[in-house]
Amino acid sequence: MGRFDATGGYRRFVYTAAERECRDWFTQEARRRDLSVEADRNGNLWAWWGDRTAGDAIATGSHLDSVPDGGAFDGPLGIVSAFAAIDLLREAGDQPRRPIAVAAFAEEEGGRFGVACLGSRLLSGAITPERARGLTDDSGVTFAEAMAAAGGDPEGIGADDKLLSRVACYVELHIEQGRALIDMDAPVAVGRAIWPHGRWRMDFTGRADHAGTTRLDDRADPMLTYANTVLAARKKARLADAVATVGRVFCEPNGTNAIPSAVRAWLDARAPRPESLDQVVAELKRATETRAAKDGTHVAFTEESFSSEVVFDAALRDRISGTLHSAPVLGTGAGHDAGVLASRIPTAMLFVRNPTGISHAPDEHAELDDCLTGAQALAEVLRELAC
Amino acid sequence: MGRFDATGGYRRFVYTAAERECRDWFTQEARRRDLSVEADRNGNLWAWWGDRTAGDAIATGSHLDSVPDGGAFDGPLGIVSAFAAIDLLREAGDQPRRPIAVAAFAEEEGGRFGVACLGSRLLSGAITPERARGLTDDSGVTFAEAMAAAGGDPEGIGADDKLLSRVACYVELHIEQGRALIDMDAPVAVGRAIWPHGRWRMDFTGRADHAGTTRLDDRADPMLTYANTVLAARKKARLADAVATVGRVFCEPNGTNAIPSAVRAWLDARAPRPESLDQVVAELKRATETRAAKDGTHVAFTEESFSSEVVFDAALRDRISGTLHSAPVLGTGAGHDAGVLASRIPTAMLFVRNPTGISHAPDEHAELDDCLTGAQALAEVLRELAC
Repeated sequence: MGRFDATGGYRRFVYTAAERECRDWFTQEARRRDLSVEADRNGNLWAWWGDRTAGDAIATGSHLDSVPDGGAFDGPLGIVSAFAAIDLLREAGDQPRRPIAVAAFAEEEGGRFGVACLGSRLLSGAITPERARGLTDDSGVTFAEAMAAAGGDPEGIGADDKLLSRVACYVELHIEQGRALIDMDAPVAVGRAIWPHGRWRMDFTGRADHAGTTRLDDRADPMLTYANTVLAARKKARLADAVATVGRVFCEPNGTNAIPSAVRAWLDARAPRPESLDQVVAELKRATETRAAKDGTHVAFTEESFSSEVVFDAALRDRISGTLHSAPVLGTGAGHDAGVLASRIPTAMLFVRNPTGISHAPDEHAELDDCLTGAQALAEVLRELAC
Repeated sequence: MGRFDATGGYRRFVYTAAERECRDWFTQEARRRDLSVEADRNGNLWAWWGDRTAGDAIATGSHLDSVPDGGAFDGPLGIVSAFAAIDLLREAGDQPRRPIAVAAFAEEEGGRFGVACLGSRLLSGAITPERARGLTDDSGVTFAEAMAAAGGDPEGIGADDKLLSRVACYVELHIEQGRALIDMDAPVAVGRAIWPHGRWRMDFTGRADHAGTTRLDDRADPMLTYANTVLAARKKARLADAVATVGRVFCEPNGTNAIPSAVRAWLDARAPRPESLDQVVAELKRATETRAAKDGTHVAFTEESFSSEVVFDAALRDRISGTLHSAPVLGTGAGHDAGVLASRIPTAMLFVRNPTGISHAPDEHAELDDCLTGAQALAEVLRELAC
């Protein structure tokens, strides 16, 4: 569903036809298992095994949407594994003492409206309904319009304390997005924390000039400062044991024979520890300003988003680690709904090995055996927590 | 005409309303002087003083169109100076023995259809009519469609040997696009040559991956290779006494949290001597390939255009230098219609001092005194050649 022939990648954007197909599939799979299905106020889907109003529920799940030209596993693997884990519990004759819910959170990737984890942010009150309603996609359609067109009520979105109060904890299974489990030779890991991470817009400005006739010494070329920043970001990240990426850039006027007047780019930086992240960004700013002075250009850094470290609930993590005694414990540089919800309820994550480490790209992959091991691990966790 | 408030720059693109206003102005100025006006088969305007069919004419002029957000002087200064020079000759009572023509060549900048000097290329046969007709602007409009909409006949374009056979030589006055005349403390220079120059498309390819979760060592990030190439281009150009610029770049998928799969950029390189240019490009390719191997990426250079050095007609240049005995002689890194026409008829150029050196940008400027000196110099040259 939502696979594009031209790239081989998936485009399952919230409230598009491809994502609607995924939602219909979710509903069918839930009903096949006699689970009751509801969409909450924020467009997240919930399938309940047991009495949804009983409270103290164990929730699991992930998301159905994708980044542009993403892979098949990021998101859907957690949903498929949740249904599979329920099947395993039932095959084993387990009867949960507490309700079990399978959740599919909306717009986790921010692939259409730009804000990641939008569904869980709304649910937990981490974004205001006003701001969410006004978010626009590349065609200028607002989130409110898209939700209404899909049959939802954009006036009803926002924090849902009543729903959250019925959920004791949330365990999200997700494909690993790096290669740590390959090196550890393990199929499944338990999440320790989500790294602190942030995005900075970098505005490099110089002076437009003719590329053929302006002597090198007379130039104020912001592309040079930009290029130096790209290389410096990599170097500073390496030294601080962090990651830093410049993956988005626009140039003005962007003509072959024109020295640019401006280059705008974004830095994505993350680190296992807050102090490492601070160090990378501070040192990069210093290095960039030094180079800008040399190039006769100007640079401004603007923090567009910053997420502090999320350490998953220690008691829940220890209980899960105890259940899956051989599973290593991993931090991750990626954001997840489990990270957003951690501000309201205990959350935890399981990661399934990715043999290439490739993520957010068509070649993203997990081996079937590892997927089955992941579903088995999730079943054990649900049994431990709910039965 | 064609000035945009937002940038202060001009957008006088061929066959747009702004350029049509310039053409109308040209026609009015010509008629005010009793010059006969014609558009040639390729949309270039000609204003004739004397019998246009007599042959052996001395042509001068330049172009009316601009780059996107260009300045006021690049092009129009040559036309205005041509009319002013005719006024000066008439005021002095000079009566030309040979016809004098003022030419305004179409699409010199390639600002709309991407091929610089399109009007003079068509006139001289340097581009086929078929290729020219099919060139498209950013909205997908073809050159043929735009020309037809402006009342021209796109089926009639192409080499015009009959017209060229009536022109003995072409002298183009142009604002300087660098700062050489400031250093030389001279208001006007005579052109020696147009540097050899070329454009290369550079395709950097790597592997799309998640910016938050992919370890630095596991990445194949083409943005790093690109950044290194930008800095290396500058360095190699400096060492070879050339200029090199990377002013145009596109990134895929261009997402803040995505390691790019591909970066496409263009190199513009020029040098006073062919061997210097060869050296810059060869060394840059080597340096880029070395870096690509280190980054795990791939790079391909494609030559999109190459113009050999154009040395202006030596006899004509000597005659002009003799007339303007104090004027220095300059090479230039910019292409001009006088460079294209040099393959068919003797051509020459005059440059007027630019106090900032800024070109192809709103701040491009020439002082009034220098413009008057330029017009006076052009009048002396026309007197020497035509009277």
